[in-house]
Amino acid sequence: MTPAGYLAVDSGGSGLRVAVGVPGREPSARRETRDPVRTNARGIDPAHLMDQLVPVARALAAEAGVGELGTAVVGAAGFATLGDALRAELPGALARELGVRTVALAADAVTAYVGALGPRPGAVLAAGTGLIAVGTDLTGWRRADGWGHLLGDCGSGAWIGRAGLEAALRAHDGRAGGSAPLLAGAEEQFGPVRGLPGLLYPRTDRAAVLASFAPRVAACAAQDPVAADILRAAARHMADSAAAVCPADGTPEVALTGGLFKMGDQLLTPLREELARRLPHARQVPAEGDPLHGSVRIATDLAAGRLALPGDRAMLYVRRTPGVGAT
Amino acid sequence: MTPAGYLAVDSGGSGLRVAVGVPGREPSARRETRDPVRTNARGIDPAHLMDQLVPVARALAAEAGVGELGTAVVGAAGFATLGDALRAELPGALARELGVRTVALAADAVTAYVGALGPRPGAVLAAGTGLIAVGTDLTGWRRADGWGHLLGDCGSGAWIGRAGLEAALRAHDGRAGGSAPLLAGAEEQFGPVRGLPGLLYPRTDRAAVLASFAPRVAACAAQDPVAADILRAAARHMADSAAAVCPADGTPEVALTGGLFKMGDQLLTPLREELARRLPHARQVPAEGDPLHGSVRIATDLAAGRLALPGDRAMLYVRRTPGVGAT
Repeated sequence: MTPAGYLAVDSGGSGLRVAVGVPGREPSARRETRDPVRTNARGIDPAHLMDQLVPVARALAAEAGVGELGTAVVGAAGFATLGDALRAELPGALARELGVRTVALAADAVTAYVGALGPRPGAVLAAGTGLIAVGTDLTGWRRADGWGHLLGDCGSGAWIGRAGLEAALRAHDGRAGGSAPLLAGAEEQFGPVRGLPGLLYPRTDRAAVLASFAPRVAACAAQDPVAADILRAAARHMADSAAAVCPADGTPEVALTGGLFKMGDQLLTPLREELARRLPHARQVPAEGDPLHGSVRIATDLAAGRLALPGDRAMLYVRRTPGVGAT
Repeated sequence: MTPAGYLAVDSGGSGLRVAVGVPGREPSARRETRDPVRTNARGIDPAHLMDQLVPVARALAAEAGVGELGTAVVGAAGFATLGDALRAELPGALARELGVRTVALAADAVTAYVGALGPRPGAVLAAGTGLIAVGTDLTGWRRADGWGHLLGDCGSGAWIGRAGLEAALRAHDGRAGGSAPLLAGAEEQFGPVRGLPGLLYPRTDRAAVLASFAPRVAACAAQDPVAADILRAAARHMADSAAAVCPADGTPEVALTGGLFKMGDQLLTPLREELARRLPHARQVPAEGDPLHGSVRIATDLAAGRLALPGDRAMLYVRRTPGVGAT
């Protein structure tokens, strides 16, 4: 008899990342799709997700020699606010199409958390173009920020890039708070700054355009006090979010995950200082893995009947369906 | 013989405001259109402007008993960056259609300046949803900010509203820097804040949505220190822009114009203090009039051959066309 396996999914802005494996047997078989799951008036579209997922899951199961996919975990960007249709339809669809009996649907921030820290109490900062903090004391979930580039995402790549461009334009205008090195960097990257509004505002990916300037801010920070101040302010904002979600008692762990932290020590040094100051009881640890690793981790714990993480309709929703073959 | 008159125009986000009059004879006849002039790949569309302007100008001239429109002044939002087609075509079109011989094309910030201060050296802050500062020593123009809600417009209505919503969401998350009164105000205005990203990001008028929250920030400021800090920071940003454009010598005048300043003393008191601190040599004066008043003022000075303001291709562009009837 072929072994019972799991299906783990990370659904994000660039498509699906899918893994199929057998608990206790590593590594899993993995594949990516390039088509981000659509959102319609009912939220994230379960049919569009299934159309992409089913053929990939079947191929990976065959490749990995997995007979039955007993457990599936889907971490999805936007799940907390746009997950109604997924909750209503995905468990049934996964049972029908793939024979899955136990399904967990999670916010991508939760799979990021579990990928970074596993089922231990603490706080995780997930930062790229945007920023969100998630924490748990294993009785419930808390989150902070993640409001997008106009309402928050304070300290994110978009936030740092936007602040850097503002400092560049202050230098151009002769206003206080300007940075000549950032102005030079902006003109190198975008051309004459008079044209910058015309480049930025018509785009639909404005947050990504802003975030594309963040590495220049980091590159200037060693020499330029304005750029260094921007990164220190970003570190304070990140620590605000981490402090809002981190358990107040015990020895929680704090980890960083996401592409923004590749910017290096110009950001990481002030961030580690702020976290030590604001959360002296917490232990800063490296992230174990990424969000797909978090989905795999939840799936193997669920399959073994030992999921230690708290359920939550908007954050981590677990649903068991009677086996199709058993009726 | 009927007297020679002028045509004055303020072209903005809500359409055209048009005045026809005779120098020395007040008031002028006025009318508004509701169709904002289109922008295409060549910039502001001169044909679309003329289509709206010509019938209104003819009707107003008849109404005012003006025979010949010798002078026309058009102040237009976006002129500084999107004015190429206007410069190329509008003087000729106005000569052909309306017999105008002297045309001045101006950035709306310049007509706002002249409306507020007339042809005197100083600085004008024009603030509504956005913010720009314009200054002149009568030998050239300077401007600061006006970069839009993502790159600047620091201290504007959109800036104040955005900062207020960020403080509301900080309170919601339990992050530092939050304001419970602003959170209550945000939920009163927009409903549960979890839905705010879904309300804001799909809109094309995001800056206006942000600015719509600015009056709540002002209303909270008497009781709420976070809201009061936002207005003080806005005042500092405005003073940064005014200081960047105000002549350093002599006794320049400084004036405020635009809808934002209707917010009252919660904003005006810290702004007056900042301006006094940053520009102790300048005299703060009330604005005489609005941008259409500025267009009228430029037109009457041009008609009388006594325009004291400096020409500038991007700010105030004057062009004389030989009379059509004279060829």
